[in-house]
Amino acid sequence: MINKLVDKIKKTEAPIVVGLDPMMKFVPEHIKEAAFKEYGETLKGAGEAIFEYNKGIIDSIYDLVPAVKPQIAMYEQFGIEGLIAFKKTCEYAKSKDLVIIGDVKRGDIGSTSEAYAVGHLGKVKVGSKEYYGFDEDFATVNPYLGSDGINPFINVCKEEKKGIFVLVKTSNPSSGEFQDKVCDGRPMYEIVGEMVDKWGSDCMGDSYSYVGAVVGATYPEMGKVLRKLMPKTYILVPGYGAQGGKGKDLVHFFNEDGLGAIVNSSRGIIAAYQQEQYAKFGALNYADASRQAVLDMREDIKGALLGRKDN
Amino acid sequence: MINKLVDKIKKTEAPIVVGLDPMMKFVPEHIKEAAFKEYGETLKGAGEAIFEYNKGIIDSIYDLVPAVKPQIAMYEQFGIEGLIAFKKTCEYAKSKDLVIIGDVKRGDIGSTSEAYAVGHLGKVKVGSKEYYGFDEDFATVNPYLGSDGINPFINVCKEEKKGIFVLVKTSNPSSGEFQDKVCDGRPMYEIVGEMVDKWGSDCMGDSYSYVGAVVGATYPEMGKVLRKLMPKTYILVPGYGAQGGKGKDLVHFFNEDGLGAIVNSSRGIIAAYQQEQYAKFGALNYADASRQAVLDMREDIKGALLGRKDN
Repeated sequence: MINKLVDKIKKTEAPIVVGLDPMMKFVPEHIKEAAFKEYGETLKGAGEAIFEYNKGIIDSIYDLVPAVKPQIAMYEQFGIEGLIAFKKTCEYAKSKDLVIIGDVKRGDIGSTSEAYAVGHLGKVKVGSKEYYGFDEDFATVNPYLGSDGINPFINVCKEEKKGIFVLVKTSNPSSGEFQDKVCDGRPMYEIVGEMVDKWGSDCMGDSYSYVGAVVGATYPEMGKVLRKLMPKTYILVPGYGAQGGKGKDLVHFFNEDGLGAIVNSSRGIIAAYQQEQYAKFGALNYADASRQAVLDMREDIKGALLGRKDN
Repeated sequence: MINKLVDKIKKTEAPIVVGLDPMMKFVPEHIKEAAFKEYGETLKGAGEAIFEYNKGIIDSIYDLVPAVKPQIAMYEQFGIEGLIAFKKTCEYAKSKDLVIIGDVKRGDIGSTSEAYAVGHLGKVKVGSKEYYGFDEDFATVNPYLGSDGINPFINVCKEEKKGIFVLVKTSNPSSGEFQDKVCDGRPMYEIVGEMVDKWGSDCMGDSYSYVGAVVGATYPEMGKVLRKLMPKTYILVPGYGAQGGKGKDLVHFFNEDGLGAIVNSSRGIIAAYQQEQYAKFGALNYADASRQAVLDMREDIKGALLGRKDN
């Protein structure tokens, strides 16, 4: 799957993943009204509304980007009905040949981590049969529990030829509270980064490993260090756009070949129509606004990478 | 809810939480057969089997213990149908007045962490209505992302009078890879523990705070240090039994008042009938074996705590 992701990034010339994090306040009124008319103001109605909203966005951007990243929390908050919408979103995006990065930030130990890996990436056994649970292509994973938490994911990834992105340095303001602590002369995020490189060395695709890393666009200097520390690791970069990251902050996350990083934007794309810049599209044409936001983001990143070569 | 938990621990004299982590290999054949007969070897069949299995255990132990801790990964691996079984398990345990500790180990940032908090502990808004998603009483939370990940949970806990347990030092062999790293002269788990104490100081129940900690029974010396560092923090202690922790390892996790810790046992109780010691009960009476295992565990802990006073 890392090979497919890299191929699609090359083809689309867009190292971009669209974060499908549908908050109800992003969903246009006409979609909410239709869903509530059919199902009432219920959890099922909410699930239906966010799925329809996602569908519009996917239809509008699937030819431009390699991947989408549904954030499961935004679905899980609606309980079972929300998770049904999550699954339908993954299935629909897959039907458009998009790579699915499940932003699930799971992480536990031993058989428990294995259960998460099986549920999100692999197949579960029921008697003599096997079934996929959510069947994403990649999942994000929390490293706090160490190798015991990661290895079960890697085993499933090898079997299914899928991948994970391990949280190394997250994009949020307080990420430094623990991640930046200096241990044995080095910050924790470097220690984690080094382990990511090691975990990945054992499961390589053609040029990058199955074990990626999450490093926030909001910390470009750390991105530079981590890029060198993990040369074969694909970096998933959140924090672009709404969180303050800009194209020029991203250049150090990429390798010289222009690969090695994929940048996420969520509300900057899916709620583009609510921003002044794209307000002219209006709520009815929210998906067209999202498409324009993707095109603009692609140019921003392309420009920044070209600028790097000029220097 | 922390007050209710403490009250129930006092009443039952059992600082014990039963981990409902139903692996298919634990579920007795007669339960699997009945479920597969009705629903086939399907995800729904699996969900039905684990719910029936849990129901038997809950019926058998609800008067002995204050709380159960369903491990969501074991349900999530079966996709939507598994999560329906998780929700039904929580509801059924709640109907028996058990406190529900959702072992979900979620953790993200800002609005995303808020969505997890809302989904597991709080109410989500749909138009003019509000609904509970999974409605557990406590949830376990991963601290790697710092305060940005914890505060949204605390806000929901204050509103709902519920609580969280933050991973501080986990029970697994590799937990030290990151958690034991010495930063500014102190191991990471102490730095996290100090933050737990701080987060909790702002949301106190009668004697303990809404913000608990997870510290593994397998590291008793660290438990001793953390107990002193976080005097008002309830400690959820995994690792007893199957993972190797024994009653005598637990004494330092408790305060002088005999409170302050609740010890989890999962397979040691729910799959007791598969152990030599309880094999005489047989698979048909698996729930009676679980009851006996709880009684034995209660004696083991009681004895260890009495032993402490004698010294």
